[in-house]
Amino acid sequence: MGKLRNKQEGFMRLALKLALKAKGRTNPNPLVGAVVVKNGKILGRGYHKQAGLAHAEVLALDKAGEAACGGSLYVTLEPCAHFGRTAPCVDKILASGIKEVIFAMRDPNPLNNAKGAKRLRRSGIKVFSGILEKEAKEINEVFIKYITRRLPFVTVKVAQSLDGKIATGAGDSRWISSKTSRKLVHKLRAEVDAILVGVNTVLKDDPLLSCRLNGSLRKKQPKKVIVDSNLKVPASLRIFSSHSPAQVIIATTRFAAQRKISYFKDKGVQVIVAKDKQKRVDLEDLLKKLARQQIAHLLIEGGGEIIASVLKKKLVDRMYVFISSKIIGGRDAPTAVEGEGIVKVKQATRLKDLKIKTVGSEILIQGRPSYAKASEGRPA
Amino acid sequence: MGKLRNKQEGFMRLALKLALKAKGRTNPNPLVGAVVVKNGKILGRGYHKQAGLAHAEVLALDKAGEAACGGSLYVTLEPCAHFGRTAPCVDKILASGIKEVIFAMRDPNPLNNAKGAKRLRRSGIKVFSGILEKEAKEINEVFIKYITRRLPFVTVKVAQSLDGKIATGAGDSRWISSKTSRKLVHKLRAEVDAILVGVNTVLKDDPLLSCRLNGSLRKKQPKKVIVDSNLKVPASLRIFSSHSPAQVIIATTRFAAQRKISYFKDKGVQVIVAKDKQKRVDLEDLLKKLARQQIAHLLIEGGGEIIASVLKKKLVDRMYVFISSKIIGGRDAPTAVEGEGIVKVKQATRLKDLKIKTVGSEILIQGRPSYAKASEGRPA
Repeated sequence: MGKLRNKQEGFMRLALKLALKAKGRTNPNPLVGAVVVKNGKILGRGYHKQAGLAHAEVLALDKAGEAACGGSLYVTLEPCAHFGRTAPCVDKILASGIKEVIFAMRDPNPLNNAKGAKRLRRSGIKVFSGILEKEAKEINEVFIKYITRRLPFVTVKVAQSLDGKIATGAGDSRWISSKTSRKLVHKLRAEVDAILVGVNTVLKDDPLLSCRLNGSLRKKQPKKVIVDSNLKVPASLRIFSSHSPAQVIIATTRFAAQRKISYFKDKGVQVIVAKDKQKRVDLEDLLKKLARQQIAHLLIEGGGEIIASVLKKKLVDRMYVFISSKIIGGRDAPTAVEGEGIVKVKQATRLKDLKIKTVGSEILIQGRPSYAKASEGRPA
Repeated sequence: MGKLRNKQEGFMRLALKLALKAKGRTNPNPLVGAVVVKNGKILGRGYHKQAGLAHAEVLALDKAGEAACGGSLYVTLEPCAHFGRTAPCVDKILASGIKEVIFAMRDPNPLNNAKGAKRLRRSGIKVFSGILEKEAKEINEVFIKYITRRLPFVTVKVAQSLDGKIATGAGDSRWISSKTSRKLVHKLRAEVDAILVGVNTVLKDDPLLSCRLNGSLRKKQPKKVIVDSNLKVPASLRIFSSHSPAQVIIATTRFAAQRKISYFKDKGVQVIVAKDKQKRVDLEDLLKKLARQQIAHLLIEGGGEIIASVLKKKLVDRMYVFISSKIIGGRDAPTAVEGEGIVKVKQATRLKDLKIKTVGSEILIQGRPSYAKASEGRPA
């Protein structure tokens, strides 16, 4: 049994590796890899490249051709049994003559409810699941969050000075982090569907928020979301120019002037009128609305008020904190996380599953927020 | 020659190791180790344990006894030729019959001016210097700063949240850093002559600032310096109690009420009336005055205003920044470095020679400030 398991894990590991080739490009679909095996030989490989294109199983079975008959199919995710943009994979599997299907994790979509596995079993195919399940879930954390919660997976990125500042008191922020760190940020941008910033960040830095790799603009650009509760952003900013070649979305509230909303819409900017809370954009509502337009992975790049707000609402799934070796100082300089803050240290959100990396003379801390329970840390 | 050098370095490395045994306990004296060698055999070892006690050379020669005659003396620092609290080592060396002296670094005291080496040479002893000089200078960075600049070596310690806060907006700071990190701080305290904090830190946290290792109070406690420009600190605080068994020094200005100065003096508190700058204690003047009372190593533990001030005046030699995995947030929460701050990021002080260490789920960043030149980063 140990030996069989080892063999199965080996093929599944290959399928996972194939799946990862499309990292950041399949949203809102999952990453999926598949391998067709018979008598210990690999007859076909495939991975899902992009939403709308063929599924991994189909590609692997096509590669294997008629030889697939009587073989095993390894796939990182339970095959689908429903019509989406492509035909159900289960039909393709049944037609191929495959005799067993081994998958790593169930389809997390609650609507599917293990339909794929059930149909395969009912048709007399042996089905095994749970091989490298943890690894499969890890590579699909974005998809799992998106499909089960109907909210984007939220990554927060912060680039701060050693003493936690994101700009000088006078507003200068170029450049707190090094070129190497900034390059990593562009890599991160390449993996997400949209970048979100507060209007003050846009006003202060006039950023393009585009994704450049090796100096040139990527073909696929993440959308840009500006949170602007009162719609005060001027249309003259660079983000609205042709240098910034991606859909811009302004998230505002009913307090925005209708005339200005129309003006931006005419310019091709999408305007979302979100619910409001204390006269500001209700970020949870905004995130739900972004998920509805298939934004599965959202990168929030600041400023401190927005980040404090999403942390407070426990909407953050992952943080990247770049800590520079520069000291900015200044009692009025803006910091990475602002808002009201907490009263007692015990109430603090912690980062867990820390990964610490040095990037030149800087430090990158990655982790997942572990939110304090509501009952914790109440003033005694 | 290479072989001889190797042998010499081996003995010198041993002498350095001996010297380090007294780390943090010899101030304001240097760390010194010595080894007496004849025919490749070690006849005596010694290290300087504490100011006022015997010098390393004397101890090593005493151990070797008469056998030292005709041998070599390895010592990490040029032997002294003057009367201090003990007799000159040069006399002892001459009396021992040692035929060669190998030392790592010159006595940095500008007043001594290589007198030790000169007297030895004039008496016919072969003198070699510069063996592991860099290493010897490293272990004596505190002494070198103190004796050449007549200023304490200044280490700044900061314990901050991931987002750079040293307390919540409401003033709570217990505990931003973990037990393991706090233990490291106590080890650091054990190596210094005095700990300095601003009065606001004392008022807010009511700390003892004592040095505990393994739960019990160390016998040798660093002095405690409170910077309190207007002498507003109340005598009821714990730092003035018997639980805090070390000399307390209040640094104030001519704006302090004479009556209050007398009151504290009567209680056994030392009061230094330093020069003032913008009605506040001139920290450079204070540091000079502390050096005059043989405080060679000063640990500054905050708050953010004091740290900003000493960084601005380029008085800091080393920084220890403990970064917790907790997020405090709060636009009004105090940060590790406050003050006016800089205008342009280019003007930032950087930490160089970084050492990054994980301490449990926290990060300790050590480094030396590299100050921007005055001409750098002026607003364009």
